[in-house]
Amino acid sequence: MSKHQKLLPLSPVPLYSQLKELLRTRILDGSYPAHSQMPSESELGAIYKVSRITVRQALSDLHKEGLIFKIHGKGTFVAKPKAFQNVSKLQGLSEAMSQLGYEVLNQLLSFKFVKADSQVANRLQVPEGTKVAEIKRIRLINREPVSLEVTYVPQLIGEQLEKADLITRDIFLILENDCGVALGHADLAIDAVSASGELLKALNINEGSPIMRIERLTHNAEGVPIDFENLYYRGEAFQYRLRIDRHTNN
Amino acid sequence: MSKHQKLLPLSPVPLYSQLKELLRTRILDGSYPAHSQMPSESELGAIYKVSRITVRQALSDLHKEGLIFKIHGKGTFVAKPKAFQNVSKLQGLSEAMSQLGYEVLNQLLSFKFVKADSQVANRLQVPEGTKVAEIKRIRLINREPVSLEVTYVPQLIGEQLEKADLITRDIFLILENDCGVALGHADLAIDAVSASGELLKALNINEGSPIMRIERLTHNAEGVPIDFENLYYRGEAFQYRLRIDRHTNN
Repeated sequence: MSKHQKLLPLSPVPLYSQLKELLRTRILDGSYPAHSQMPSESELGAIYKVSRITVRQALSDLHKEGLIFKIHGKGTFVAKPKAFQNVSKLQGLSEAMSQLGYEVLNQLLSFKFVKADSQVANRLQVPEGTKVAEIKRIRLINREPVSLEVTYVPQLIGEQLEKADLITRDIFLILENDCGVALGHADLAIDAVSASGELLKALNINEGSPIMRIERLTHNAEGVPIDFENLYYRGEAFQYRLRIDRHTNN
Repeated sequence: MSKHQKLLPLSPVPLYSQLKELLRTRILDGSYPAHSQMPSESELGAIYKVSRITVRQALSDLHKEGLIFKIHGKGTFVAKPKAFQNVSKLQGLSEAMSQLGYEVLNQLLSFKFVKADSQVANRLQVPEGTKVAEIKRIRLINREPVSLEVTYVPQLIGEQLEKADLITRDIFLILENDCGVALGHADLAIDAVSASGELLKALNINEGSPIMRIERLTHNAEGVPIDFENLYYRGEAFQYRLRIDRHTNN
């Protein structure tokens, strides 16, 4: 019983919410491994000393997040976790995922200064052929490669990124904290493509595997484009989530 | 020259904007076919009786939208149009695409009442086995199939949809206008999968083609889930676009 951290009944955080966080941590750290059966509602109630209603609310939230699934008449099981990023707010992968208890690391494939081709020049609003920095990184979540990221930034920013820690840090946070750039908004285009070329080795996948591709153009607070990226996510390993409203205030 | 509609110099809409709309219409209706060369800037200026600056601004906007592309030293060409939907606001496909000059039609594959499986029951917050309506539609943009849409709604709403025109209309608009349902927000999850099963025939694609998959749960204005859908888009034919801000007011 000692391995079960106690909930805090006097905390302002509701008990079901504490229980949900605790169970989520256990699932993500492997204490409850993928495909294993979760303890029953009454067992969980006994272990964590909470009512069945509290257990049910916590499980219902975990179910909505896709962390557990139910098999009728058999009980509740741990899902193979499919990582997802909530993209209602502009965040780097590490920033977003570490809040959910995932560890993000990067493998730097290449960092070089190249001449902007017509697409890069158009997006960064510089003349074609202008020197820009090209950065290729594999991003790993819990040590598994989930995406290849190809980033283009203007030369001056590139020279600062060159000195920064690109293995553990998001480029967004380096821009904000080391380069003093205030980030504004990003325009995203999302589609699906088949894996080929350098993606195969980078993501350890077969030719033709489904890839979620994101073209992302990030602007500073003044609206100037400063960071043009193509992100290639392994389709079966990652998801974007967002909320859209019918009526917006724009 | 008579085929070239005239711009209106006295209109409050800027000339470059009028020219852009006119050229966009011509591209989308095939007057300027995919991969054909656009007239030069000076030719366009002569045809539409506007300055070169006006032409350039219009072309620059069309370029940003991906409707045309430039080949250095050769000129401007019409891109194979990849349709996209701006998902910053919750809209049905027809509603969103008709604003961009596309025609959306639907082919109704099936409409039946089925027992909710555990996923559908969970999303619509009804007991497993509850009767719900299942609607399968192929959505065609400019007569080409771009997506298969599998929709689940509660029985009562289903009975109203059954009487509605599902060939030319969005379900969102039927819900609002015929059923008196005020739509609220939708939660989306986006990933990429490989085409298989019924998708192959429905979208006229090969096994393994990349598919952008969207799980969308739409709620009414009171926050009750009323419409659960899985949307399967042909990866090479469609794109979602959105803008994300670094700092939100939530």
